[in-house]
Amino acid sequence: MKADLITVGNELLDGTTLNTNAKWLCDRLFRAGIPVARIVTVGDAKEEILSSLEHAVRHSEVVIVTGGLGPTHDDVTKEAVAAFLGVPLVENRELRAHIAAMFQRRGVEMPPVNLEQARVPRGVCLLQNPLGTAPGFRFERDRAVCFVLPGVPAEMKAIAEASVLPFLRKRFRDRLAAVRFRNIRTTGIFESSLFEKLAPVSQIERWVHLAFLPHRFGVDLRLSVQADTEAEAEERLERAAGFILERIGEFVYEVGERSLEQVVADLLFGQKRTVAVAESCTAGLVSHLLTNISGSSAYLLGGVVAYSNEVKQKVLGVSAGTLATRGAVSAETAAEMAEGIKELAGADLGLATTGIAGPTGGTPEKPVGLVFVGYAGPDGTETQRFVFHRERLSNKYRFAYAALNLLRRHLLALKRRDSPPV
Amino acid sequence: MKADLITVGNELLDGTTLNTNAKWLCDRLFRAGIPVARIVTVGDAKEEILSSLEHAVRHSEVVIVTGGLGPTHDDVTKEAVAAFLGVPLVENRELRAHIAAMFQRRGVEMPPVNLEQARVPRGVCLLQNPLGTAPGFRFERDRAVCFVLPGVPAEMKAIAEASVLPFLRKRFRDRLAAVRFRNIRTTGIFESSLFEKLAPVSQIERWVHLAFLPHRFGVDLRLSVQADTEAEAEERLERAAGFILERIGEFVYEVGERSLEQVVADLLFGQKRTVAVAESCTAGLVSHLLTNISGSSAYLLGGVVAYSNEVKQKVLGVSAGTLATRGAVSAETAAEMAEGIKELAGADLGLATTGIAGPTGGTPEKPVGLVFVGYAGPDGTETQRFVFHRERLSNKYRFAYAALNLLRRHLLALKRRDSPPV
Repeated sequence: MKADLITVGNELLDGTTLNTNAKWLCDRLFRAGIPVARIVTVGDAKEEILSSLEHAVRHSEVVIVTGGLGPTHDDVTKEAVAAFLGVPLVENRELRAHIAAMFQRRGVEMPPVNLEQARVPRGVCLLQNPLGTAPGFRFERDRAVCFVLPGVPAEMKAIAEASVLPFLRKRFRDRLAAVRFRNIRTTGIFESSLFEKLAPVSQIERWVHLAFLPHRFGVDLRLSVQADTEAEAEERLERAAGFILERIGEFVYEVGERSLEQVVADLLFGQKRTVAVAESCTAGLVSHLLTNISGSSAYLLGGVVAYSNEVKQKVLGVSAGTLATRGAVSAETAAEMAEGIKELAGADLGLATTGIAGPTGGTPEKPVGLVFVGYAGPDGTETQRFVFHRERLSNKYRFAYAALNLLRRHLLALKRRDSPPV
Repeated sequence: MKADLITVGNELLDGTTLNTNAKWLCDRLFRAGIPVARIVTVGDAKEEILSSLEHAVRHSEVVIVTGGLGPTHDDVTKEAVAAFLGVPLVENRELRAHIAAMFQRRGVEMPPVNLEQARVPRGVCLLQNPLGTAPGFRFERDRAVCFVLPGVPAEMKAIAEASVLPFLRKRFRDRLAAVRFRNIRTTGIFESSLFEKLAPVSQIERWVHLAFLPHRFGVDLRLSVQADTEAEAEERLERAAGFILERIGEFVYEVGERSLEQVVADLLFGQKRTVAVAESCTAGLVSHLLTNISGSSAYLLGGVVAYSNEVKQKVLGVSAGTLATRGAVSAETAAEMAEGIKELAGADLGLATTGIAGPTGGTPEKPVGLVFVGYAGPDGTETQRFVFHRERLSNKYRFAYAALNLLRRHLLALKRRDSPPV
């Protein structure tokens, strides 16, 4: 069982756009037990798409085409598929109604060009696009089942999750290898230090394949295994994960797929506690991350972006003395900010950041990358100091994650306090 | 003149790694006047690499292969090339010395496996790798010149810059077109509406190639042109850009590469004005974006994330009457929030957002995706209403960009007011 991808778009060939769709689809198909054997990227050119399709259906049993389904003149994927199938493009009434309804909901008059999107190759099976007007569809040819999806990532993903992956899992149920993954997500430690603590990695690779995936917030350890049976795959994952957690458990915020903000949100939901955030250097990023979770109004009451010292004093009540003697970037200021925002918003917990994101504003004692994060709650006030040496945006993300991790640790402690083991 | 890329590596197919090498090479080749026509990505599998090479040399005059040149068992690109050329792999003395010297410089004993890297297909032309032990090399076949480069991005780029691009520029000197780009960035308008306003696009395509690139914040129009001379390329860009700006200028925030936050920051820097932000639905994202610009403390005084009504009233001074009669998501609340934060922070300008990011919380009158953005400044108070139908995170970004665009328009008006044309 394997899959071929055909990703379409001039923007993928002229250096404009990174092919994130291909990576996402590879990941999802690999997890489903249908590894991708080949990706072909071509421009918005009918002949290229057509010949890639002809090659792919001879090559793999699953073919996924993305891109080139927009309403404009340079979108020719549908025409290529119609030529491949030897059928005309015909207007689909259901699709036309969906497109018209989409524009009506937006309160916008539909540009006539969008009607072009209601035309699909005759005989294909439509796949609902909940997020846009570009249609997705499925057809079969020779031994292959083919899916055609829009190139807009959110729309492509929505259709793949709802209509492509479930279909494949059902269709090929009896033939899929047992592929299992586990993600061990860490923050607050460098990739090379993780590597050292786990050395030699060959011990772990007796059981699983191990990849180190550094990103903006930390480093993920990605364990993967292909085995004959699910039981064997699970057992090997368990052994490897146990080995790893024993060595680096203190840096792990999640074994699984949840983001740190989701982990924190789930703890807050479970404890019915509220939080408010005072941000200097992260300037709203912590609040933004905390509110990327649906339902976040249950726990986030509000926040203050205290960029100027005046706002720190006037709104958050940080004392002039602290600012004068310790400075705006200090443990004391972080503590007073956390306590101040907790008070101001009437929240159970207060969280704060103050630091120097750079690239300017550093001094020998307080370098670029320095941050103090603060927490205030029923279990007291705590601050932590970190230095990250990155560019501005990465520093902001590292700072925000340091603050969220501090909050996570206290939420775990509060949970233990609320319901002590019997 | 066009190029084919073959990118090799299992990690590109199992969802682990984004193919940034392909994007980088596409960009460099496009700018050099040799657009990439096709990218094929295959795993570390000799047969797949071989058949991709056979296809590519029939297809393009320039072929670049990356990846699979490491020292371990799963690196088979060299073997595939040797099979393609019908020659054996032979040890290269120069390369062996280079690899040994590299290890010596690092002060590490050379693992014997690295000697494998000194073997290359007989007869190829070696390309110096200044950063690593994997060899790059060049060969010709039929009408095509082929380059084989390591997959490690830094090494690939170093060899491409030093040995591939200069070679191509020299070899094809007389046949390379002058390539020029221009980016016209819009926000607050749908891709299809832009297309309608510019219809028929064939008018513009007399001069340039036009691509519509929708992203989280809006739609970029990317103009590209290949011409015989640079002067002709520039002239065609000028004509096309003039034509476009005349029709959709009101939605354009930038002709060039700057982000909207950078455009707003440059206006604020230029006018020495300060701003403060009150955010409900965007919950810190506007402040975060405004502070991604280095030096932003000169213009951003602070902000309030007013997620709860209590914070809206208590901190921002939104009246209970407005919240009760108009609701938290209303033009009146947006206006009072903008005025409130301006006052509270002592800023020249106030900016506000209130809306429903979803996926829950919508009603028939106030659907998910509805947002009111508010501005308060020396030229008065203004609010705008938008409806975006996207998922939560995209809605937040659209909301934030709508607010920043409102601010941009007022900054332009203030600039005209400050220095009226003589």
